[in-house]
Amino acid sequence: MDGSHGESAELKPNWKLWLEIDGEYVFGPGAYAILKSIQEEGSITRGAKALAMSYRYCWGLMKRIEVQTGKKPLETFKGGSEGGGGARLTDFGLELMKRYTEIQSRFEELAER
Amino acid sequence: MDGSHGESAELKPNWKLWLEIDGEYVFGPGAYAILKSIQEEGSITRGAKALAMSYRYCWGLMKRIEVQTGKKPLETFKGGSEGGGGARLTDFGLELMKRYTEIQSRFEELAER
Repeated sequence: MDGSHGESAELKPNWKLWLEIDGEYVFGPGAYAILKSIQEEGSITRGAKALAMSYRYCWGLMKRIEVQTGKKPLETFKGGSEGGGGARLTDFGLELMKRYTEIQSRFEELAER
Repeated sequence: MDGSHGESAELKPNWKLWLEIDGEYVFGPGAYAILKSIQEEGSITRGAKALAMSYRYCWGLMKRIEVQTGKKPLETFKGGSEGGGGARLTDFGLELMKRYTEIQSRFEELAER
């Protein structure tokens, strides 16, 4: 450690936040990053690539959320002008992101105090 | 999953909170539980036993905190009327517990809303 800190080295709170159902982990920072990337990139393939994650991992995580909640966070479609199809967030997917960021930002406000 | 939940299965926030210095993990739920147990039991040996943890693990965690922060969370003493000595929390140890529980309870209040 940097000796110059000494007494004044500051202890700061940090945390990992997630959403769960009946005590079971459903949606955390990884799933949030994946949804955001798919939202920006327009497909699971490009969304996964932008995060240097595998398609299989991202798809599997979205599928797990669907199985746990009974709702799809994404809808996929085929073809289109550029071919190859894509994916977009459902209202449920957008709601997951919103709930996560709302709580996260409230925690951040609290931690600043 | 219980099919009767369906649409109404509730997504609830949960989190793991810790304190860090310069991005380095210092004090989390494990260390909190150990300090609390030592406070209640009056020695590292008995505090560790009450948590079904090893003395070595608990001692090592407390030592790591001391090395990271430059302050002792515990003071140990020898002998006494019952022999065998014991451990008590320092002001710094109490402060760690207080900061942790304060933030934790504010997060809980927020999560309830």
